[in-house]
Amino acid sequence: MPQETGSQSVRAVRGSAIRDLLSVVDRPGVLSLAGGLPAPELLPTERVARAAQAALTAPAALQYGVTPGVVALREVVHARETAKLGRDAGAVLVTHGSQQALSLLAQALLDPGDVVLVEDPGYIGALQAFDTTRARVVGVPMDHDGMRVDELRSILERERVRIVHTVSNFHNPGGATLSEERRRELACLADEFGFWIIEDDPYGELRFAGSTVPPVAAFSDRVLRLSSASKIVAPSLRVGWMHGDPAVLALVERLKQGADLCGSSLTQSIAAELLADQPWLDGHVGRIRAAYAERALALHAALRETFGDRLRLTAPEGGMFLWGEFTDGTQTSARLTEAVDAGVAYVPGAAFAVQRDLGHALRVCFTTGSPEQLREAVRRLATVL
Amino acid sequence: MPQETGSQSVRAVRGSAIRDLLSVVDRPGVLSLAGGLPAPELLPTERVARAAQAALTAPAALQYGVTPGVVALREVVHARETAKLGRDAGAVLVTHGSQQALSLLAQALLDPGDVVLVEDPGYIGALQAFDTTRARVVGVPMDHDGMRVDELRSILERERVRIVHTVSNFHNPGGATLSEERRRELACLADEFGFWIIEDDPYGELRFAGSTVPPVAAFSDRVLRLSSASKIVAPSLRVGWMHGDPAVLALVERLKQGADLCGSSLTQSIAAELLADQPWLDGHVGRIRAAYAERALALHAALRETFGDRLRLTAPEGGMFLWGEFTDGTQTSARLTEAVDAGVAYVPGAAFAVQRDLGHALRVCFTTGSPEQLREAVRRLATVL
Repeated sequence: MPQETGSQSVRAVRGSAIRDLLSVVDRPGVLSLAGGLPAPELLPTERVARAAQAALTAPAALQYGVTPGVVALREVVHARETAKLGRDAGAVLVTHGSQQALSLLAQALLDPGDVVLVEDPGYIGALQAFDTTRARVVGVPMDHDGMRVDELRSILERERVRIVHTVSNFHNPGGATLSEERRRELACLADEFGFWIIEDDPYGELRFAGSTVPPVAAFSDRVLRLSSASKIVAPSLRVGWMHGDPAVLALVERLKQGADLCGSSLTQSIAAELLADQPWLDGHVGRIRAAYAERALALHAALRETFGDRLRLTAPEGGMFLWGEFTDGTQTSARLTEAVDAGVAYVPGAAFAVQRDLGHALRVCFTTGSPEQLREAVRRLATVL
Repeated sequence: MPQETGSQSVRAVRGSAIRDLLSVVDRPGVLSLAGGLPAPELLPTERVARAAQAALTAPAALQYGVTPGVVALREVVHARETAKLGRDAGAVLVTHGSQQALSLLAQALLDPGDVVLVEDPGYIGALQAFDTTRARVVGVPMDHDGMRVDELRSILERERVRIVHTVSNFHNPGGATLSEERRRELACLADEFGFWIIEDDPYGELRFAGSTVPPVAAFSDRVLRLSSASKIVAPSLRVGWMHGDPAVLALVERLKQGADLCGSSLTQSIAAELLADQPWLDGHVGRIRAAYAERALALHAALRETFGDRLRLTAPEGGMFLWGEFTDGTQTSARLTEAVDAGVAYVPGAAFAVQRDLGHALRVCFTTGSPEQLREAVRRLATVL
């Protein structure tokens, strides 16, 4: 039947990789390192319930809202982003999670045949968004300082690059953070070559070691900067946001009208209250950081002890993931079924491959296990890898 | 700047008609018949607050959800749609309002150059969704029995029609409901010519006079049927749904992953509870119907008394709008500024024109005024029209 239903769309849709991964998470008895979900016990159900009660004293919380988002939410996001940038962040557009921002930016900025550069390994949500436009997605390798920005110039000189997408902090899946020097270089290249940078930063506030690096958007006006409340408050608010070039934002806003008319006044009002409640938010994000730090360090230590130099790991400094590459040729996709049978799951590197061969790599998530569960997961891993 | 930012997208986006219309609504002192919002005083803030509290006893309400939507919501929608159809409605996909269903269906089913047939006057949200695909949108006139289905065959014989979109009950803006005979004819034509029918039915339950007509989907498998909780519970839940052909639904689900990953577990859980609470829902929708009936009849009577045979009006049987066409050549766009100065607003027919000249028509919304306010609005209209 697919051949009957709009041929390009069918070809353009990347396999349902995220969904297939999530389906492993719930298998009983499996200690899953494959997920990508925030720790459920840290989701602030009581605080959200209070905010919901407050919002629902007025019918506006149940009515249609304006397309760019509830004003109070745009104001608090503007203040927070301005503080991060060290200059006025300009207008803010609220999106249905960062994923909608990616999808609408792809629609707004790309024509078929345009080139998009992404980190390799790549963030699957971004790959899905870019694939639907029939743009050509080209991967740029990463190392411990993030995207190899030194490899960009030669690509930029031969290709019509419209977008460079980067998950600048605690890359999913690559773990690494783009260094400040590379952020400056990337920004200079955008100004020189006229492409757009999409700085996709859902994890920046989840740093538990090392020093904060200024956003790429601090160094150029050609950055569309995305973030969201999903990792610091709750995914189900479906509140993401974007700021950057006003003409691009205006176009994205019009496309959003066609895509879903507007977001939820209810969840946006809840997000506005929680992001503006600085004492609560500081404490809450602090608790998330502390828990994730403990878990990340436990997982990292267990992997180091178990696999030693056979497994090259990213440093655990923040975010939700560690990325590992086996240096002895161990193949991760082929072993996944055995691993699940042994009671542990991970995501094979191949799931994130753009052009590189990542058959020797894996992504592990440390957010949803206790330190003891994570150590047990690694003991099980050791039996198959 | 638009020429720098993805040329097709810019050309394809229809002017921000809905937004511009909504901006008139809030002008102080104006009695607006131009809006399209549910009555705010009938939004069930207390019932939603209770459902939110119940949902927020579990972290799942704040976590990422599955792309097709919360299971309990799909179950209750399935039961309700099965009852409407008189046969198994099959799988249900939850969307971010019906607008997302339109947008994803356009992306899934249309290639550039395909033809989409819509009622003329057309529903602006659908026109926006179809325009972004560079399909060709062709209007089919309406009368008091809805779309002139008898005009379809000649178009189908000369054009490659992929989709016929119809707002089957209480058309926005056209007011009319597609008769059962025409639904059957339309379904037969879909089977004969192999196009898809999108049956867009947000208003079907808001009938306060006349008899319910079976859904178009009762007569053919080539119908993607859309509805939503926006008009019977609350717009800000952003809960719409779609059912129909399984292969189309599977494709739309994959496109939804790229578009926004998933909807809100929180608002979907709230919608599930409210739609499943039949005694409450019956009473609530009954109150909406009673209020809208009183308002619609007041507005209709005032327009009849004031304009007589000069203004041909749709019968007030349900939904949120009346549609009027002046028979004496009165031009509505040209008079809108004067009308707003006189303290009343409406939407000129031209805003909804696909191919027809609707310069003599207007849409008026009866949901948000009391009978006395609606009568006063008509007195003000009389001074300028």
